[in-house]
Amino acid sequence: MNTLLINNIEKIKQNVKSWKEEKCKIGLVPTMGALHNGHASLIEKAKQTCDKVVVSIFVNPIQFGPNEDFDKYPRTIENDLELCKKYGVDIVFSPTPKEMYGENKILSNTELTYVCPPYKFVDCLCGKSRPGHFDGVATVVMKLFNIVNPDYAFFGQKDAQQLFILKKMVKDLNLDIEIIPCPIVREPDGLALSSRNTYLSTKEREFALSISKALREIERQYNTGITDANILFDVGFSVLNQNINLEYLEFRDFETFDKIQNVKKNTLIAIAAKVGKTRLIDNIIIG
Amino acid sequence: MNTLLINNIEKIKQNVKSWKEEKCKIGLVPTMGALHNGHASLIEKAKQTCDKVVVSIFVNPIQFGPNEDFDKYPRTIENDLELCKKYGVDIVFSPTPKEMYGENKILSNTELTYVCPPYKFVDCLCGKSRPGHFDGVATVVMKLFNIVNPDYAFFGQKDAQQLFILKKMVKDLNLDIEIIPCPIVREPDGLALSSRNTYLSTKEREFALSISKALREIERQYNTGITDANILFDVGFSVLNQNINLEYLEFRDFETFDKIQNVKKNTLIAIAAKVGKTRLIDNIIIG
Repeated sequence: MNTLLINNIEKIKQNVKSWKEEKCKIGLVPTMGALHNGHASLIEKAKQTCDKVVVSIFVNPIQFGPNEDFDKYPRTIENDLELCKKYGVDIVFSPTPKEMYGENKILSNTELTYVCPPYKFVDCLCGKSRPGHFDGVATVVMKLFNIVNPDYAFFGQKDAQQLFILKKMVKDLNLDIEIIPCPIVREPDGLALSSRNTYLSTKEREFALSISKALREIERQYNTGITDANILFDVGFSVLNQNINLEYLEFRDFETFDKIQNVKKNTLIAIAAKVGKTRLIDNIIIG
Repeated sequence: MNTLLINNIEKIKQNVKSWKEEKCKIGLVPTMGALHNGHASLIEKAKQTCDKVVVSIFVNPIQFGPNEDFDKYPRTIENDLELCKKYGVDIVFSPTPKEMYGENKILSNTELTYVCPPYKFVDCLCGKSRPGHFDGVATVVMKLFNIVNPDYAFFGQKDAQQLFILKKMVKDLNLDIEIIPCPIVREPDGLALSSRNTYLSTKEREFALSISKALREIERQYNTGITDANILFDVGFSVLNQNINLEYLEFRDFETFDKIQNVKKNTLIAIAAKVGKTRLIDNIIIG
């Protein structure tokens, strides 16, 4: 039995309350577990900024579509606890779906209060192919915020649209929480770390490598003075392995999320693609 | 200039923070102003329960439909401040729409993060004729909760569906706030107090009186042993003045919000009706 682990909402609320009385600054790192060095970098950042760090591990059913990988999503709680212990996490909060939603089933918006991010930022990029996904994300993050009551919450920039949407949620709903974005962590050869990388065969991993290569090549060409998004799209597309199924390669202003024709500082360049059955995302932000 | 009044979100957050440091229990009474004795009863209750009481006065644009009475809704800030002062309110928070939504226009769910209560509880009673209304209510109340950070929030039972939906929101999103329902306050002749009563002509006010009469007659017949909702509907309907346009007269379980065939303890009996151009609601809860 690991002393870090709390499954119960009331119990963690009590812990947080006593921390608040000691005037501790609390950091939250929300995760779905299957922790890798990307998560570790979020935890390290949280440890630097906060007195107490909570990592939540919860594979959130309401952010998965009916044909997505909720059931097979990797669950590695023992390893996750080891990693959290090593990095000095104070509490790992890992509730059951029943503890979070009060029912043994996936709850729809017929039965459950949802937080719904603006349609404008949801009906694009990953939201196009994953209807309801960001409603599920915003809802669970709001719940976690209310349970853990953090001063800071740490999110990876790999999920750039999620990051944007959660910052918007904090602003729109007047939450007293600062969202801290953390850079993407990559394998030495460039592949962005993801819990879903474990799905990839050796061959697929090779194909997948061309995603980060494409982004690097776009950035390189941009640095030579090419700013036209159409030209840079072609640059990236030509680098992508032919066995990859491109879902999108888009250029957006990371302040407004508007599509961009002339790439400039703070442009988000985002890719989603399927490699075999595995859906991967990656991005860079210019600047 | 009234010293009670704060229009600015950051300023009230600072006030609340210093109260929290003094371990004060904070009560919030959210209103749209045009305060009457119904509101006064909420404030009195809050004063009994809490160390500090905030009354918010905000005619919330996003909870009005395009053909509703947002523009003509009564605004009586000077009188409201008098009443709040008299009842010992600590702060009146009365922001502009721009302060709350950052824009000089009514924001839709294309641009703004919304809190959306469950469809099941929204797509009935008042929600049927007021699409989007409860999304707007839940969103502004969530914002007010995050701005004022209250321990208790006080709502009138006259808006029974709103009360139900906000309790559900608190539960679903794990908010650390207790919703305190307060009984309906009536004129001596039975008319439920409402800021919209000021719209009524003398004749219309007479017609409107039959709404509370219908509810009382239903309760009286129930107390003689009649529990069948159809029969009790007819009882109520026969009492309603013919010049009134009934929108609904429904019997619902106030625990589950399911429709009820056999009226029993904790049954909500709710009426909405138009008297002239004025839409009025009223209800009783059995037991």
